[in-house]
Amino acid sequence: MRIRRTPGALEYLLAHDLVINDPTQWQGKWQEYFANENPIHVELGTGKGKFITSLARLFNHTNYIGVEKVPDVLYKAVKKGEVLELSNLAFLMLDIFRLAEVFGQGEVERFYLNFSDPWPKNRHAKRRLTNPVLLDSYRKILKPGGEIHLKTDNEQFFEYSLNQFANKGWQLQNICLDIAKRGPDFNITTEYEEKFRKQGLKIFRFEAINS
Amino acid sequence: MRIRRTPGALEYLLAHDLVINDPTQWQGKWQEYFANENPIHVELGTGKGKFITSLARLFNHTNYIGVEKVPDVLYKAVKKGEVLELSNLAFLMLDIFRLAEVFGQGEVERFYLNFSDPWPKNRHAKRRLTNPVLLDSYRKILKPGGEIHLKTDNEQFFEYSLNQFANKGWQLQNICLDIAKRGPDFNITTEYEEKFRKQGLKIFRFEAINS
Repeated sequence: MRIRRTPGALEYLLAHDLVINDPTQWQGKWQEYFANENPIHVELGTGKGKFITSLARLFNHTNYIGVEKVPDVLYKAVKKGEVLELSNLAFLMLDIFRLAEVFGQGEVERFYLNFSDPWPKNRHAKRRLTNPVLLDSYRKILKPGGEIHLKTDNEQFFEYSLNQFANKGWQLQNICLDIAKRGPDFNITTEYEEKFRKQGLKIFRFEAINS
Repeated sequence: MRIRRTPGALEYLLAHDLVINDPTQWQGKWQEYFANENPIHVELGTGKGKFITSLARLFNHTNYIGVEKVPDVLYKAVKKGEVLELSNLAFLMLDIFRLAEVFGQGEVERFYLNFSDPWPKNRHAKRRLTNPVLLDSYRKILKPGGEIHLKTDNEQFFEYSLNQFANKGWQLQNICLDIAKRGPDFNITTEYEEKFRKQGLKIFRFEAINS
């Protein structure tokens, strides 16, 4: 994605209630942060925020955290979030590779991976959000029986990700090679997804269970 | 597939050394049949036999059994096989749904499912060779750690099959959505596959381990 610079975005984020500064202080205590015992769902690479803000508005009894490291992108997500005035939504400006510093063992019930950067070159495989090192990190943070829901328009990233999860012994379910034709009844779209669907591109999807 | 009738095909098969009459007599004793202790690999729906006869010629220390219920199709496979004069090849004229009567527990090391009829209508799902009932039957016959290798040109059948194996807790590996681009180094083609590849169609593939 080519990112348009927004002057003052970083300052805005650092001062915003929805963006949690020094999130390591909440490690293992996220339910305390939200002041309830509802499950915690985290979107990894939350982008411009359409997906997570839609979910947070629909499901009041789930706490949603959007993780995004690029300030100029996260800025748009926070803008979407603030008008909704929701108490079950928060954002982290964080690199996914630092996730384990921020969440405790078994603290998260679900991760969403939506249209992650496919990093198609083999020499960049370590940057893909479904590489073996990150899968181990997700497993530690996910509660037993917790799930990862992945969507992508990229066939090769889909194939790579399926194999990584399978190799690590995750239980797979609801594998779908074309959600327009055979997808789930309930589907919240992202900004990317809307664009790709208009172009007639296939969207792939699967779920992996921390079994 | 539209099948061209071959007059005398059935009589030919019934009298042929390569086709085993009353195969139930060999249940649990297939290594005895081949008079060696080599592993047994079975192709389910062997069609015109290009795949299994190629393998049998390449790998002398594996016993190959091709299973096909349609006489006019099996006829062509046996014709391909007989000129090779191989001692590690046999054919069964059998419905896959009767497999458990013919093979003993843990007797087979590998199954191949190549371009099986996708039976696309939901009401025909029970006829698909990867339906849950047949998966249980394969598991019983496969030795622990044995594998099923599946190839298909049909996206929906591929997706259905992946989900069936995943749901039953099989370990999946080498999932590939386009073997022309990212397939295994070693690939024996079938008659169908040759045709589909010439048409530029994608071929899907995966392996499931009886783990």
